[in-house]
Amino acid sequence: MAATYNRVALIGLGLIASSMAHALRWKGLAGEIVGTARSAETRAVVRELGFCDRVCDTAAEVVQGADLVVLCVPVGAMAAIAAEIAPHLAPGATLTDVGSVKQAVIEAVGPHVPEGVHFIPGHPLAGTEHSGPRSGFATLFVNRWWLLTPLSGADDAATARLRGLLEGMGAHVDEMEPAHHDLVLAVTSHTPHLIAYTMVGVADHLRRVTKSEIIKYSAAGFRDFTRIAASDPTMWRDVFLTNREATLDILGRFTEELFVLQRAIRMGDGEQLFEYFTRTRAIRRGIIEAGQDTAAPDFGRGVPAPEAGE
Amino acid sequence: MAATYNRVALIGLGLIASSMAHALRWKGLAGEIVGTARSAETRAVVRELGFCDRVCDTAAEVVQGADLVVLCVPVGAMAAIAAEIAPHLAPGATLTDVGSVKQAVIEAVGPHVPEGVHFIPGHPLAGTEHSGPRSGFATLFVNRWWLLTPLSGADDAATARLRGLLEGMGAHVDEMEPAHHDLVLAVTSHTPHLIAYTMVGVADHLRRVTKSEIIKYSAAGFRDFTRIAASDPTMWRDVFLTNREATLDILGRFTEELFVLQRAIRMGDGEQLFEYFTRTRAIRRGIIEAGQDTAAPDFGRGVPAPEAGE
Repeated sequence: MAATYNRVALIGLGLIASSMAHALRWKGLAGEIVGTARSAETRAVVRELGFCDRVCDTAAEVVQGADLVVLCVPVGAMAAIAAEIAPHLAPGATLTDVGSVKQAVIEAVGPHVPEGVHFIPGHPLAGTEHSGPRSGFATLFVNRWWLLTPLSGADDAATARLRGLLEGMGAHVDEMEPAHHDLVLAVTSHTPHLIAYTMVGVADHLRRVTKSEIIKYSAAGFRDFTRIAASDPTMWRDVFLTNREATLDILGRFTEELFVLQRAIRMGDGEQLFEYFTRTRAIRRGIIEAGQDTAAPDFGRGVPAPEAGE
Repeated sequence: MAATYNRVALIGLGLIASSMAHALRWKGLAGEIVGTARSAETRAVVRELGFCDRVCDTAAEVVQGADLVVLCVPVGAMAAIAAEIAPHLAPGATLTDVGSVKQAVIEAVGPHVPEGVHFIPGHPLAGTEHSGPRSGFATLFVNRWWLLTPLSGADDAATARLRGLLEGMGAHVDEMEPAHHDLVLAVTSHTPHLIAYTMVGVADHLRRVTKSEIIKYSAAGFRDFTRIAASDPTMWRDVFLTNREATLDILGRFTEELFVLQRAIRMGDGEQLFEYFTRTRAIRRGIIEAGQDTAAPDFGRGVPAPEAGE
């Protein structure tokens, strides 16, 4: 495949950026891959791992001459990075990001984007509970959705070119309004994460059950919560602070429904519980049919094994 | 391996019983495996699949001459089955169960157990979101915990013999007080399941986000909830009705902590969120170190692939 961009600059070298670098190289989608990270330690690790052709010490430096710049830092760090790189962006370059929240990123980054640079916000719905430059692998985006939320008046050719790169890494691309994105993600990701964090916290605080018991007997349900609750704390703090309204909306609905089921348990209303649990099965069936998970007993996942990274 | 029991009778032929049958056969742990199920359709399926040496039409019939009887029906059905089989149990036989709640099973079954029969309640912490006789596989219990809650005055030799069978199928066996079992499971399994059911229910009710969006974009967190929430509705209804007190206790703590985090989001208290999310990571690390899950990126599970069943 011919390279889609001559030089791709990755800012922030964690799970997503390192997976992108592996995938771009695997598929030959970028002429040159350059990267930077705030921490000198991370930059040293990336120089050692070698998934970037060149590692720069600053964001201002890394974007020079890049025709695609990807912001892969936590949402709360986007504004400062945007201000730093703005004067150095090449005319005609495309600027995108991988933040889990889109309205807040648009507010933070948008005002800094110079005339002639195409800002196309994005969000890959892919990840693991691991973080950092060693956690990336080339197939992370295969068969996963990558949502773009182009602003009104966005350049169609620039969007199509970015889309080509994302599809080249194996992702399915959809476009969406930023506000709708934030609501959909509040339901499918942000609130489930908060709930998982909370449940793991409750277990941690319970004195009558020891930590070793929690850990030993986690197989039946709790284990999946701990996986979710092991995700990067900085990223998730920023998600909740910046997608506050949608998350609080969904959380309100969640506690409302939880109280209904709690009351059914207290009153011994088995019929209501049975009916509720039967309905939730249908959604699961839909997800399996949509190919986002598999029906195999021991929970096989719908993505091939990692081919690169560690 | 020499057979541990001459005849094992399985009552209720769903995921657990069919996995036991596959495992007992695989390891040669039972001279003969007999089974029954309430539904004629299930009995026909099991006759076709052939994982029992003999399928009987009634529970009264299946226990005759069995030196091990395993109750694999939902907790709410245990009392009626115990009453039905009691007059037919062989002297010296061991009676166990696989219910997810132990105090309620002991109350339901205990009064029916005749003198000379050893009743040793049990609970394998293993399962998938699938149910029914076609869902079993021989390695379901490998490297998983199987908790026994023997009553005071239980026969040590009978307990040791049952333990040998469970360990023969690959399980680790622990003994525990029934009340403590119910509390530990309320934390590690029952409350997480209720929460997952609720979150999936919220998504189902939300009009502004379509079902197809929920299904397409489920990759980042929600997918694990739907897996949990796809479990057998009858089994889970009975779990909540019979482990009511412990579940309501843990649910109360859960909503309390959730409100604290919800307030932190509303007030923009990033430090509190960050600190909370950092602590929950440690529990995850403990589970990986205890071998109940793996640290591999794409969520590999700690159990070998199924070798039997489907």
